[in-house]
Amino acid sequence: MAFTRPRAFLFDVFGTVVDWRTHVGRALSEALAPRGVTLRWAEIADAWRSLYEPSMERVRSGSRGFVPLDVLHRENLEQLLGEREELATLQRGPRALGEQEIDELARCWHRLDPWPDAPAGIERLRETGVVAAHSNGNVSLMVDLARRGGLRWDVILGAEVVGYYKPEPQSYLRACELLDCAPSEVMMVAAHDGDLEAAAAQGLLTGYVHRPDEFGPGSGGAFRRSGKWDLEAASLTDFAAGLC
Amino acid sequence: MAFTRPRAFLFDVFGTVVDWRTHVGRALSEALAPRGVTLRWAEIADAWRSLYEPSMERVRSGSRGFVPLDVLHRENLEQLLGEREELATLQRGPRALGEQEIDELARCWHRLDPWPDAPAGIERLRETGVVAAHSNGNVSLMVDLARRGGLRWDVILGAEVVGYYKPEPQSYLRACELLDCAPSEVMMVAAHDGDLEAAAAQGLLTGYVHRPDEFGPGSGGAFRRSGKWDLEAASLTDFAAGLC
Repeated sequence: MAFTRPRAFLFDVFGTVVDWRTHVGRALSEALAPRGVTLRWAEIADAWRSLYEPSMERVRSGSRGFVPLDVLHRENLEQLLGEREELATLQRGPRALGEQEIDELARCWHRLDPWPDAPAGIERLRETGVVAAHSNGNVSLMVDLARRGGLRWDVILGAEVVGYYKPEPQSYLRACELLDCAPSEVMMVAAHDGDLEAAAAQGLLTGYVHRPDEFGPGSGGAFRRSGKWDLEAASLTDFAAGLC
Repeated sequence: MAFTRPRAFLFDVFGTVVDWRTHVGRALSEALAPRGVTLRWAEIADAWRSLYEPSMERVRSGSRGFVPLDVLHRENLEQLLGEREELATLQRGPRALGEQEIDELARCWHRLDPWPDAPAGIERLRETGVVAAHSNGNVSLMVDLARRGGLRWDVILGAEVVGYYKPEPQSYLRACELLDCAPSEVMMVAAHDGDLEAAAAQGLLTGYVHRPDEFGPGSGGAFRRSGKWDLEAASLTDFAAGLC
């Protein structure tokens, strides 16, 4: 290792620890296909997810106060149902999803499964330091994912606890402060360059985990070291092995 | 049960889950006895602890902004070292504790052990609902106690996360909000009437665990049901058995 072993690890969750695309696509299909709508559901999952960044940006820019991700997911689903032609047609007809059904569908993000290597990788890393979920997802969402997937976090931080959405600098700094660690003692672990770049800019160590299937099987290509991050691995179990 | 099984449990920690008095007394003895001070260390632990409420009260009353409990513990230790005659004498002499030694001693609260029944009781309750640490202790302190004692929390809430010290109403309400639960779906678990009274006033369910040894072996007397709380038990394992 070219760095001192971190005292704590902050984990990105969506895409890094859990597979959102498979389950969200399935949940959309289960809710909407019986109503006669035929669409490529994984693409609709992508479309829903694509509203995530702009909706957080309104909070980050200060044009609205902090609201938890559950609220944004619900609003973004409504937007999707209004904008996408086949869905808007459904919603104007007698088989439209009602308010409660939209609520339920929006909560499908609470039922994502981990990538197969994640529980064991986190468990093993936990032997070397504090493991913290540090997601833009809210607390109850993270609790549900952890209980469902057997993810043994020492602590759940994230946007709702620190009051800032990633990649705002304060998100990383406040998380370090809550762990009573200097940024240089903490490693951000993510499958996404943006998250790692923002963490590195605040002085955190960076760990990259390759997730080739996040946007569809194999869409992310084979794992190749980029040399940009302090640690890079093809899976979370490999990642933990690199530190244990 | 005369109530619907809670979806989540908020746990008081100091005294309810961990034994603070034994270890704090021992830490004081280990730091100070070699410097020639002879005192009843468990009583000094009590004296340190007695500064806890007034120091939090300054935050609760708004006369100072929120500071984490680690800071209050450090300040209160300095006050104790200044006020208690034998300690003040030591601190004026050549064998005085230095700043770093005071820092280290103040952090003895990070090394408390659980009551023997606590890890198993929490683990078993976790099968019935979400278990959350909801202490006035700060996040890093709770992480250290959990890792040390094998306390498997689903989530660490508490004063530093919610921004209010118990027994402020907002402390309980914000914790429920973060868990996405109505107060009536959440049970506060504590060995102290004040915590339970404050939680009940906000509509939470209440669970009392008897801790006869918190202020010295047997000082709390035998367990007797008071009838004041939704659930009462002589230990956390009995408590869990009452719900499973």
